Amino acid sequence: MKLVTFSAGDADRVGVVDAEAGLVRDVGALLPPGAGLLEVIELWPTVGPVLAARVAGQPSIPLAEVTLRAPIPVPRRNLFCVGKNYRDHAAEFGRSGYDTPSRSEALPERPIMFSKATTSVVGPDAVIDPHPGVTSELDYEGELCVIIGPGGRGITRENAYQHVWGYTVLNDVTARDLQRDHKQWLLGKSLDTHCPMGPYAVTADEITDITACELCTEVNGETRQRAPVKDLIFDIPELIATLSAGITLLPGDLIATGTPAGVGIGFDPPRFLAPGDLVEITITGLGRLANRVGGVEKT
Amino acid sequence: MKLVTFSAGDADRVGVVDAEAGLVRDVGALLPPGAGLLEVIELWPTVGPVLAARVAGQPSIPLAEVTLRAPIPVPRRNLFCVGKNYRDHAAEFGRSGYDTPSRSEALPERPIMFSKATTSVVGPDAVIDPHPGVTSELDYEGELCVIIGPGGRGITRENAYQHVWGYTVLNDVTARDLQRDHKQWLLGKSLDTHCPMGPYAVTADEITDITACELCTEVNGETRQRAPVKDLIFDIPELIATLSAGITLLPGDLIATGTPAGVGIGFDPPRFLAPGDLVEITITGLGRLANRVGGVEKT
Repeated sequence: MKLVTFSAGDADRVGVVDAEAGLVRDVGALLPPGAGLLEVIELWPTVGPVLAARVAGQPSIPLAEVTLRAPIPVPRRNLFCVGKNYRDHAAEFGRSGYDTPSRSEALPERPIMFSKATTSVVGPDAVIDPHPGVTSELDYEGELCVIIGPGGRGITRENAYQHVWGYTVLNDVTARDLQRDHKQWLLGKSLDTHCPMGPYAVTADEITDITACELCTEVNGETRQRAPVKDLIFDIPELIATLSAGITLLPGDLIATGTPAGVGIGFDPPRFLAPGDLVEITITGLGRLANRVGGVEKT
Repeated sequence: MKLVTFSAGDADRVGVVDAEAGLVRDVGALLPPGAGLLEVIELWPTVGPVLAARVAGQPSIPLAEVTLRAPIPVPRRNLFCVGKNYRDHAAEFGRSGYDTPSRSEALPERPIMFSKATTSVVGPDAVIDPHPGVTSELDYEGELCVIIGPGGRGITRENAYQHVWGYTVLNDVTARDLQRDHKQWLLGKSLDTHCPMGPYAVTADEITDITACELCTEVNGETRQRAPVKDLIFDIPELIATLSAGITLLPGDLIATGTPAGVGIGFDPPRFLAPGDLVEITITGLGRLANRVGGVEKT
């Protein structure tokens, strides 16, 4: 099932998308009053079967006529994120000098985990604010984002997929100068609008084998990143086991799993984003997330 | 005014403490239904004057009879935290080898910012879980925590204190092995129960000059940290200006401002926390935060 959050006047609504028919069905009548997608995920064992059985009878709107927001527009806490989690990206990031001055291309021995602030989240087609005056080195990172269903602590590798509710596409937009200069990455990863997500929250049962899915990032139509999810250094079960060893995971928690090679600082000289640039990220079965950088284009 | 969140049966209540009389007044009747301290802070321009005028008439309970929770038991997102923000601590942390293998004692040129997960928050007197099997290097960090009132972006140094609602005491408990081994600090800072906070949320108007306040940390009655807030390398206005340059701050956001010298890894050999240890942190005017490490004591 492909779920979305969409705007209707001042309110957010939860919908189920029929991508082939180009329709979104407003399923609000099947949910507790005021429930957003976060509550849907929390109540999934009871809500999921109701949606499956009754979605076809709900009012539909052409997908082209709705404004999609991020699937979870206001996460309940910062997103968990993983750094240097694809082999070739770890090498390009090491070489760039933005990680350590020693330009080491060594692979991480443990998952490198940081967070993005909740206020960085925006939806499909939202404008990426280039924050002139704050950063001059804006970069993209196409990523697979895992959406946690049942929470818990001490989740084993073996049980990890039982805690995955679903997936979405995420752009871990990064201000490289802030990432480098402030040492810890929170600031460089958290500027407002720097976490586009969507278009859909896709339930895990729609994806036969997530590791076989391929991620592709294009900037202005030019392919920059292309890699299968199986190339992750620390795979999804490992990330969930590592996080939950001492941190209780909550329903709706988001884990951005890392980006493959091909980011702007992977080029020499670096190819930073500029006003007007269009970043499109596609993952097999999860759809396409497109966002344009705002600001005044140079002429 | 000293505000608290306290347990009454299954529910959390908001109270105002009269520390001299040893009383807490339950102000629930003066608040919107279901409002916690987070909502009180958000609605402070209207709620604050009502509390000031009518608190004396509210039902009181002896402070000794209530169980205090963290002032904000469930923050709306991860806590913003600052690393190496006291000169002598930056040096001891550098020397320890837990930061960079080069053991550099250099001071940071920009604030080092990371986050603690919301699920790490516990209240006064709560037990600190030592997480055996996850970490074997448990350390304390006494800190002043700033509570944001009015949110906003692009807050200037000059206006920063207008956005401070108040203050509390915080223990930035750290798993040093995870902090070192995972490079980014989120994991080592975020284990469940590793963010004791409280006892009170103290409104800014109670503190004449926060920079003159002194922080003191004792472990089992032995003084380990003692420093005035004016020793911060990056002061409160600088932290607020740096964060809000590109990140919209929200009412109730928490900023842990960093720890002075005297943490466990500042000693040679390091003095890590062990089951049974009592950590007490006092800041002038903000009260005393005491938490004992759980687990089985060695005999």
